Amino acid sequence: MAPAETPLRGPVPSLPKGFRVSGLHAGLKRNPTREDISLIVSDRPATAAGVYTQNLVFAAPVAFDRARTPGTGFRGIIVNSGNANACTGTQGETDTAAMAHVTAEAIGGLESSVLVMSTGIIGEFLPMETIENGIRTVADQLADNEESVLRAARGFMTTDTRPKLTGVTFGKTPEGGTYQMLGMAKGAAMIGPKLATMLGLIITDAAITPDDAQRLLHQAADLTFNCVSVDGHMSTNDTVLLLANGAAGEEPLAGKDLEAFESALKNACDVLAHEIADDGEGATHVIRIEVTGAESREDARKVARAVADSPLVKTAIAGADPNWGRIVSAAGYAEVSFDPGRLTLRVNGIELFKNASPVGFDAKKASQSIRESRETLIEIDLGDGPGEIRFYTSDLTAEYVRLNADYHT
Amino acid sequence: MAPAETPLRGPVPSLPKGFRVSGLHAGLKRNPTREDISLIVSDRPATAAGVYTQNLVFAAPVAFDRARTPGTGFRGIIVNSGNANACTGTQGETDTAAMAHVTAEAIGGLESSVLVMSTGIIGEFLPMETIENGIRTVADQLADNEESVLRAARGFMTTDTRPKLTGVTFGKTPEGGTYQMLGMAKGAAMIGPKLATMLGLIITDAAITPDDAQRLLHQAADLTFNCVSVDGHMSTNDTVLLLANGAAGEEPLAGKDLEAFESALKNACDVLAHEIADDGEGATHVIRIEVTGAESREDARKVARAVADSPLVKTAIAGADPNWGRIVSAAGYAEVSFDPGRLTLRVNGIELFKNASPVGFDAKKASQSIRESRETLIEIDLGDGPGEIRFYTSDLTAEYVRLNADYHT
Repeated sequence: MAPAETPLRGPVPSLPKGFRVSGLHAGLKRNPTREDISLIVSDRPATAAGVYTQNLVFAAPVAFDRARTPGTGFRGIIVNSGNANACTGTQGETDTAAMAHVTAEAIGGLESSVLVMSTGIIGEFLPMETIENGIRTVADQLADNEESVLRAARGFMTTDTRPKLTGVTFGKTPEGGTYQMLGMAKGAAMIGPKLATMLGLIITDAAITPDDAQRLLHQAADLTFNCVSVDGHMSTNDTVLLLANGAAGEEPLAGKDLEAFESALKNACDVLAHEIADDGEGATHVIRIEVTGAESREDARKVARAVADSPLVKTAIAGADPNWGRIVSAAGYAEVSFDPGRLTLRVNGIELFKNASPVGFDAKKASQSIRESRETLIEIDLGDGPGEIRFYTSDLTAEYVRLNADYHT
Repeated sequence: MAPAETPLRGPVPSLPKGFRVSGLHAGLKRNPTREDISLIVSDRPATAAGVYTQNLVFAAPVAFDRARTPGTGFRGIIVNSGNANACTGTQGETDTAAMAHVTAEAIGGLESSVLVMSTGIIGEFLPMETIENGIRTVADQLADNEESVLRAARGFMTTDTRPKLTGVTFGKTPEGGTYQMLGMAKGAAMIGPKLATMLGLIITDAAITPDDAQRLLHQAADLTFNCVSVDGHMSTNDTVLLLANGAAGEEPLAGKDLEAFESALKNACDVLAHEIADDGEGATHVIRIEVTGAESREDARKVARAVADSPLVKTAIAGADPNWGRIVSAAGYAEVSFDPGRLTLRVNGIELFKNASPVGFDAKKASQSIRESRETLIEIDLGDGPGEIRFYTSDLTAEYVRLNADYHT
């Protein structure tokens, strides 16, 4: 049984200008109340950029989108959940192309104007008749209201307990308003950098050149989605797409507006990355790991990731146990060179370890601070250099095991 | 609460000539029926070799032994469980030296003839009065019978559910008999190469040069203890020591006898490594991963380790789910270059994946074969080169989470 679904946190963000979206239950998921097809359409040709899984084993839609981005002239993104179309050979490639073809027909665009995202079970062929019927129907339901945004976000979900949506405004349009950006994502397990097992989509009514779109998306994802791990398992389908249609201003962003875009994009990706860790399967805590004082950002990331992926650290947090020995020893095997004598560790602001020795601390108070907060902050200062990173993960509970021992059969 | 304890599998192996051992409850563990100090003594000076954790954060006894091996003239090994003496600064170093000093006095040897191993909780100072009293008492109880061997093996244990012992005979002594080798080990969590979180000790009545001892121990550990992962968390205390006293033949082994020793040593380490995975905390399956067709052994090891450390693979096996997608995708992110189109995957002999596509297989039969056997065999052929490895891990159950969310507090 899937976990109980909880509503979106906060209000539904507004759809950027010139977009219409929808989602519906086509029949890929067993539960008829769960959307499994989403369609995002731009009324005008948009610039698209993408970042993708680095797994050697990648799904057909990843290959399809990767070959087409960055670029211009995009009109639609068709998404299905419940089936990843991964490890499906040439049949999988044919099916992805068919999804793009049917979507293009339904929205009156060129086949080359459609990108495809799939998520769900690996290694099963897509039920194409179900999907094609779903695409034609969802194309008839496109709208720009809150309900359709929610439906579209829900169509991304697999074991997520809630839709993940964020809205940001930035810069100044030629008409004196602000540009809008909306992000939606899914992901709750098979989450390991680089990227998380996730789909993400950022749409905006600003215009941006393909080169800027690709560069800034890559940079934002590197600092956000590449710093999330639920279980360290890198997926076959990770995809984040950015679609910028220029409906609020046709001139590509430059100068201050481009900087505002960069900052908004990073912000949107960060909110979604945090949401993914927070919704980690079975999670009772989201863990924020801040590593500073490393020789480089990559060293900081390696240390953060070793800590984030240690089942012993994750179970300790689940048990509200300020077990700094597990954290320090995980840092020690990150294959990064540092002097353990200069490492300082704080959990929720309480110093636990310094000068290679235990620090006298109030274990009850530290445990209570973990137990009483949804978020646990682990700060590791290596005392060495300027490299730093912020990384999100979730704790490991018996519920994660239950969900994943039952998922397939 | 610690898990129920189960007895040793199989008979207690014989102690090699010239050794006496014992173990007792000194008071480090709460449960008075659990041994927490073990002493292994050779009646004559022995050659010692050691392999150790590669964690930057290593315990005081690791530093102590590493500085002294390989070498000759060793008489005793003192072991405590319940406290790792790790992250304990200079006090930890003083305490380790004191353990060696008190042991040397008690057995009538030089302080430099004693090596030390500790395992248990990280970051607490050793209760030295308890330990010193324990050392003096255990030295009075040394014997060469089955009971004392069992007690010594039990003194290594932390969350292990059973002592881990193995005996091997090999070669031909000058008197026409065979040499004996006995191995004992502990380890059930914080088990990630390189080495597992483990202590291991191999003793033999053969004589061997320090160089041969070190080279062959390193080689055997690389193929066995470095191919075990329970949770991927590399410990601060991993130590495997080899002690060879020449009581059955004073001339260092050479030629065929040295080859027989090499093979016996590898065999003993392999049995103990398998035992550690099999006793993984909360495990219901031991998983044997055989990777072949890699470009090199290191590539094969990386693929095996990625599969072994994936919580999604481990929970699938716990759930008797032949979820090959999780296995293939884990191989895909191992940071090894291979062609997924040439990968073949078999689980318990049943082919599940080939030519980058799902193979039609009887999922019920495959699930049943996992459910009905304690051991699951995962065979991955990358179809590329001569590199191969055999790797052990355990499945991931809710019981692992329960044990580790409760361990410290």
